[in-house]
Amino acid sequence: MKSDIDALMKERNLDALLVLGNAEHNPPMYYLTGGGHVSKAVLIKKLAQPAVLYVNAMEREEAEKSGLKVVPMRQGAMTELSQRPKEIFGEHDLLSGRVGVYGETNVSMVLHIESRIKDELPNVELVGEDQDDSLFMYAMEAKDESEAARIRKIGKVTTMVVDRVREYLTSCDVRDDETLLKDDGTPLTVGDVHSKIRLWVSEQGAELPSGFIFAIGHDAGVPHSAGSPSDLMKLGQTIVFDIYPAEAGGGYYYDFTRTWSLGYATPEAQELYDEVKDVYDKVIENIDLNVSFKEYNKMVCDEFGRNGHKTPLNMEGVITDGYVHSLGHGVGLNIHERPSSRPNSSDDNILKPGVVITVEPGLYYPEKGLGVRIEDSYWVRPDGIMEKLAEYPYDFVLPMKKWKKE
Amino acid sequence: MKSDIDALMKERNLDALLVLGNAEHNPPMYYLTGGGHVSKAVLIKKLAQPAVLYVNAMEREEAEKSGLKVVPMRQGAMTELSQRPKEIFGEHDLLSGRVGVYGETNVSMVLHIESRIKDELPNVELVGEDQDDSLFMYAMEAKDESEAARIRKIGKVTTMVVDRVREYLTSCDVRDDETLLKDDGTPLTVGDVHSKIRLWVSEQGAELPSGFIFAIGHDAGVPHSAGSPSDLMKLGQTIVFDIYPAEAGGGYYYDFTRTWSLGYATPEAQELYDEVKDVYDKVIENIDLNVSFKEYNKMVCDEFGRNGHKTPLNMEGVITDGYVHSLGHGVGLNIHERPSSRPNSSDDNILKPGVVITVEPGLYYPEKGLGVRIEDSYWVRPDGIMEKLAEYPYDFVLPMKKWKKE
Repeated sequence: MKSDIDALMKERNLDALLVLGNAEHNPPMYYLTGGGHVSKAVLIKKLAQPAVLYVNAMEREEAEKSGLKVVPMRQGAMTELSQRPKEIFGEHDLLSGRVGVYGETNVSMVLHIESRIKDELPNVELVGEDQDDSLFMYAMEAKDESEAARIRKIGKVTTMVVDRVREYLTSCDVRDDETLLKDDGTPLTVGDVHSKIRLWVSEQGAELPSGFIFAIGHDAGVPHSAGSPSDLMKLGQTIVFDIYPAEAGGGYYYDFTRTWSLGYATPEAQELYDEVKDVYDKVIENIDLNVSFKEYNKMVCDEFGRNGHKTPLNMEGVITDGYVHSLGHGVGLNIHERPSSRPNSSDDNILKPGVVITVEPGLYYPEKGLGVRIEDSYWVRPDGIMEKLAEYPYDFVLPMKKWKKE
Repeated sequence: MKSDIDALMKERNLDALLVLGNAEHNPPMYYLTGGGHVSKAVLIKKLAQPAVLYVNAMEREEAEKSGLKVVPMRQGAMTELSQRPKEIFGEHDLLSGRVGVYGETNVSMVLHIESRIKDELPNVELVGEDQDDSLFMYAMEAKDESEAARIRKIGKVTTMVVDRVREYLTSCDVRDDETLLKDDGTPLTVGDVHSKIRLWVSEQGAELPSGFIFAIGHDAGVPHSAGSPSDLMKLGQTIVFDIYPAEAGGGYYYDFTRTWSLGYATPEAQELYDEVKDVYDKVIENIDLNVSFKEYNKMVCDEFGRNGHKTPLNMEGVITDGYVHSLGHGVGLNIHERPSSRPNSSDDNILKPGVVITVEPGLYYPEKGLGVRIEDSYWVRPDGIMEKLAEYPYDFVLPMKKWKKE
């Protein structure tokens, strides 16, 4: 929560925060300003003091919507900071101390600012943090009701788009070689489906700032393959549809995956799907408040390992088939945030009240053209109940309206 | 051009480049990889050597589309770099030297990586650069025919969307108080228009990664105000429509502005528009190959100053009315890149062959509810001809189809 920031600063022995970059598509800056058309801004917050936002004068009114104190500048604020750090830090009586630096922006510029600060303010130390465990990852970890409501709403948008894609695919004509056809009689490609998805997300007023995955066959077996636009849409192949839209302007994300097979499934694919679904159900049945997230990842590794799949717990090094990722992650203004379920994550990655997490077990066999993942996002409510933030059915085989297996 | 990178490295005395972050919405990484679904990657390029791309193993196939040598890793590549910089830099025999750092990503993580490198590799210096003059801003400055073709194409998308907005607005019914009405008889708001613009850009397969401006009245007088969603669309007010879509995935931008007044214009607004259009025309008539871009900004300041407007050349400090910005900027994978037209820009910001620039004079009087800007993007062709990359008419007053001034 925002109210935790001062305590987190004290814990980390930080005298001030320096947040850099645009207000949108930049989680720490968005978190503190609420977004808006503000570019390459500088936010300085001293311990126990309110934040001050420096912006180009042209953007002063947009910046004032944040409710923060705004200082308009003649040039971009990051440029001004690089040119006169002593003057700007001096306005905060910040001529020495440890300053935590945050934001998603031009890293070359930040190293440039750092070197200018070294020259003018040798007693100021700019402090970086591991991206997975930074102060803001802790501050943002627990979501309040208003944040959960925003994620629920984008979850609704997500499942509406997914349903529209399902409706579109299952309504297609099918050629003799089991290829789906468009209205004009030409084969439907993955690229065509990608275009529809982009359009339908946009129609809902949402964005896909981190892309999305709609992949079939071999590509479905490579968890982060977005899908090859030229692949033809065919019956009886696994389709991984992983979609994570965000509110327009770089706001809150939802994260969701279904795996489909159109018309029919091969026995091998069906078995793989059932295995993943069983593990998903087992996690959801067992998941409990205040337990370390990685305990459930271990449960999944144990289950899949017992069935003979490779997992990060029974294999060393890079693995490319079996269970190749971890169970889930926090989601909010970042598509990946705390808590983590990775085996090497620290013990404080627990399912405490307020966290929003994904649960997304999967199994991948790219050489066999097979991939399965099932994913929903859950909010751990203040009362300890795990709330699935958007409902959607778990059918694997989607019957085609104009085609029947002989 | 990419072929200039080694020479630029030598000039800057850099032994290697370290490019960090996603392949999309990250200009230096996009420039070197061509985009794709690759996140938090690490690219290392030694002087006179090809680049090597480190990625999470899950993204190896997406990464290989870049044509670069790809090294798959068990975790995210930036995380791995923070944990074992000596090993990774060692693979490049890079145990000492100056390393330029680039990319748009998590700045906290980059300072963290820097501190880990200081511990393990005390003879390696990470070097930052001013965002406006970094190595990549020089490398990307001149566009070849294939890049210009992509910008021309996104320019076509831009003007198609602008024309659709124009068609939509001029077809609306108008209430007695000169408010535009939607089909359902309720007032049309700026927010409604914003939604249409987002949708129509998306329908063309393009994105608005840096937002856009559609603002009326007072907001039109504040150059970077995006427009207030609750404002009503009315006749006889200046509308600034500044739109800068990019190819999906964070590719090339186009940048374009028109100012409109629906139905009729007040004499004051018409006069302001004519003044800006005259200056725009004068710039275009005089603009010439290999001249410093800021010379034309000075020309505009002189013209506007003569007419009694404030300009950055006749006023000190922050100005909020008159001519409050500079004439234009380079555009490419960044919405703002070299060359710059700012009065304090270095003399090497010249209109050399290959640059793509905006020309966008404007005058702003927010207290009077007036703002005018006219903008097109031009490519300086190899033969020295200035090519406007998308044509669109310059009408100021747009006649309403269902309304006539009495």
